[in-house]
Amino acid sequence: MTGPQPPDLTAAAIVVGNEILSGKVVDTNAAYLAQELRKLGVALERIVVIPDDVEIIAATVRMYRDAFDVVFTSGGVGPTHDDVTIEGVARGLGRAVVRNEFLVGKMREFFGDALNPARLKMTETPEGAELIFGGQLNFPTMCVENIYILPGIPELFRDKFHAIMHRFARAPFFLRVLYTREMESTLAEFLDQTLAEFPHLQLGSYPKLNDPDYRVRVTLESKDRDYVDRALKHLVGLLSPESVVRTE
Amino acid sequence: MTGPQPPDLTAAAIVVGNEILSGKVVDTNAAYLAQELRKLGVALERIVVIPDDVEIIAATVRMYRDAFDVVFTSGGVGPTHDDVTIEGVARGLGRAVVRNEFLVGKMREFFGDALNPARLKMTETPEGAELIFGGQLNFPTMCVENIYILPGIPELFRDKFHAIMHRFARAPFFLRVLYTREMESTLAEFLDQTLAEFPHLQLGSYPKLNDPDYRVRVTLESKDRDYVDRALKHLVGLLSPESVVRTE
Repeated sequence: MTGPQPPDLTAAAIVVGNEILSGKVVDTNAAYLAQELRKLGVALERIVVIPDDVEIIAATVRMYRDAFDVVFTSGGVGPTHDDVTIEGVARGLGRAVVRNEFLVGKMREFFGDALNPARLKMTETPEGAELIFGGQLNFPTMCVENIYILPGIPELFRDKFHAIMHRFARAPFFLRVLYTREMESTLAEFLDQTLAEFPHLQLGSYPKLNDPDYRVRVTLESKDRDYVDRALKHLVGLLSPESVVRTE
Repeated sequence: MTGPQPPDLTAAAIVVGNEILSGKVVDTNAAYLAQELRKLGVALERIVVIPDDVEIIAATVRMYRDAFDVVFTSGGVGPTHDDVTIEGVARGLGRAVVRNEFLVGKMREFFGDALNPARLKMTETPEGAELIFGGQLNFPTMCVENIYILPGIPELFRDKFHAIMHRFARAPFFLRVLYTREMESTLAEFLDQTLAEFPHLQLGSYPKLNDPDYRVRVTLESKDRDYVDRALKHLVGLLSPESVVRTE
């Protein structure tokens, strides 16, 4: 499933949140990240949603750190008892949790004497974490090894991702799309033939129910624009002209 | 994070789909499953989105089969080259892929002589799989060991889940919600005090940005209705009355 120029950065997302697993909140950060990383030319290879549990976070971070080039966490970074991502990441990497003096200063600026334990909790990082500045929110993003720690609130998640995304830009993917009235089970052999001819193509087939316009949306992708254009032309050539609704 | 009557069935969701990881499709099946399982009293403990890759599906199935009571897969069960869930589940469980004669008969009914390899592919199951009938779609759901194999198209996913959900009903969770104008970093110590008093409570704290109505939504849950009611009363008693917007 790799293109002729294989994706040169792989990524994973770890979404921490009981509220998502229990159906009280619908996560939107993972889908946002998937779209943004794709635009950047990064191959997102895993999304996992896990509970607010230090040991589970630690085990997941340990596994993903080695399996992917870059890992993003979402959620669990606030001041309350269920915010355990920092501790989980630290434990996963075998690092201590330490108070960051810069963040303590920021908190003191904001809260003055009312610097209670919950507020001090928000100054903690895994030991050795880098603080990345930027974004509109005046509070840096934490990164330790290849783990970027982002907040769960969607507005904050997006703001912080915007502040760090320049780090991940790679060669882009090129996407072509074919809409067809053919049944997927008829289309299958033409897709196989196209893959035989273009083995490095990323080829997806997505049927839609009860759509008067088309039956299947076929996506063709590669980091090589010419390759994907030729593959689309090849596939269209295999289909009966009346079954092709349009290409994009 | 378990209640006084701990959840008696744990679940995980494996969503198979390059289209989700590449940001072309936003998955809705996992969120739907999370909400439905919660209503049934089942604790969903993991959601993972993985590529259309037999080995990755197999490894994930092998890991989750042992870690959770019941596992649902979503997607990858159609007739095309990227539909590899059956093969992945079979490999994960150390089973062969076999053609199911009942499904072959169904396909023959529908397609008659036009029973091509792609259509025959849709009659394959992991060896020993059970077919569960019901739902509006005339095509059964596959189950093998504790793995339920559901299609990715949302309408079909829901229809099939409806056909099998009676198998999973357990004692329900009871949810109470508090909306407060308190800052989360002030609230934290009251949440800690409430947890000290009610250690089996599932307690979540979710700040909202720029909402004129409230700052934090606090969720309290348990399978013991009286326990959660008492915990809410305790927490409200710790807050200044003017900071409480409402409870539900």
